[in-house]
Amino acid sequence: MRMRNNPRADEILLENSKDLICLEPEKNKGKWREFFGNDNEIYIEVGMGKGDFISNNALQNKDINYIGIELSKSVIVVAINKFRAFENENSKIENLRMMSLNAENLLDVFAENEVDRIYLNFSDPWPRKKHAKRRLTYKTFLDRYKKILKEDGLVEFKTDNRGLFEFSLESMNNYGMHFEKIFLDLHQTEEPNIMTEYERKFCEKGPIYKMVAKF
Amino acid sequence: MRMRNNPRADEILLENSKDLICLEPEKNKGKWREFFGNDNEIYIEVGMGKGDFISNNALQNKDINYIGIELSKSVIVVAINKFRAFENENSKIENLRMMSLNAENLLDVFAENEVDRIYLNFSDPWPRKKHAKRRLTYKTFLDRYKKILKEDGLVEFKTDNRGLFEFSLESMNNYGMHFEKIFLDLHQTEEPNIMTEYERKFCEKGPIYKMVAKF
Repeated sequence: MRMRNNPRADEILLENSKDLICLEPEKNKGKWREFFGNDNEIYIEVGMGKGDFISNNALQNKDINYIGIELSKSVIVVAINKFRAFENENSKIENLRMMSLNAENLLDVFAENEVDRIYLNFSDPWPRKKHAKRRLTYKTFLDRYKKILKEDGLVEFKTDNRGLFEFSLESMNNYGMHFEKIFLDLHQTEEPNIMTEYERKFCEKGPIYKMVAKF
Repeated sequence: MRMRNNPRADEILLENSKDLICLEPEKNKGKWREFFGNDNEIYIEVGMGKGDFISNNALQNKDINYIGIELSKSVIVVAINKFRAFENENSKIENLRMMSLNAENLLDVFAENEVDRIYLNFSDPWPRKKHAKRRLTYKTFLDRYKKILKEDGLVEFKTDNRGLFEFSLESMNNYGMHFEKIFLDLHQTEEPNIMTEYERKFCEKGPIYKMVAKF
């Protein structure tokens, strides 16, 4: 079991998980398909948390390469441990990698047009107006997504936070993005949906909002 | 009291309500400010129903001219009777006119850039896909609104119908409209709000959605 508050143990686990974790992701910039050893599409999740969503996606879609991005190393350690148990229950999953990265630095890791889809799930709402710039749908983040996404690549965004969804609709609309689909109560629809840990826990308390958009 | 199913009685009431009703609104096309006898802004409500919303607006904002549009003459008759009672309770309201018109014919009645704001409140959702063209936020209606609205004129849209709001967000976004404000639960905010009859009745059952947008 993972020792809490033991950064050294975390470092060892990360070092021993090189089949799953990219410790120097910058080195793969522009070469991710080479890295995966195939020409499949690349879908990334910015802020994967404990990784349930992206692991399940990777299991269900073996012909897509997934990259889970999470700032917090201690959260990634939880994701690794969950993933190992998940792999034991299922077949080996080869099409998933994880990395620790601040979303501000996406351009250090991905070349232009290298990514086919971006998932944003239950991002931090940063409810205070003065923190709006930190929201993952603020225009400076949209600039980065636009650069790394191929033409017509999709951004899929889910949240239970009404304020963040309102902000995101406005921000993406004003940026000139096109909405493909909007769901104001996702769980009331027939739309296929892979839940995140957070979503499973909080979906009873109110609607889950989702949008699919492109630049 | 109004006689139900008595079209002749309705016609007489309309004939006797010329201070409030425009029976030949086409004649005022391009001349609405002349008609009102001032240079104030003109706000219209497409689908005013029984008229509570627009009557209250007219009472609260004497320096704006309001025009309530409703297809059904029998609904307009209800609106007239409500308005007379409302006028008795309040001071005389000079800045409101009503008309019977199909929203498809807005261009017969308003010249380009003649309108300053358009309200759409609790429009018929036309839930079946094959009826999408009848929704008041379908692109052919947006074409008309764009023509009659002055530059930067606003469209304000409220509904309790989730499907209609999702459709409208997509439709207006794809048309290239800019969202100024989106509310996914209007009654939970501090936003000033004049309720419609329908809204008062149904707001307990779920959220009221609102958007403010411009072309």
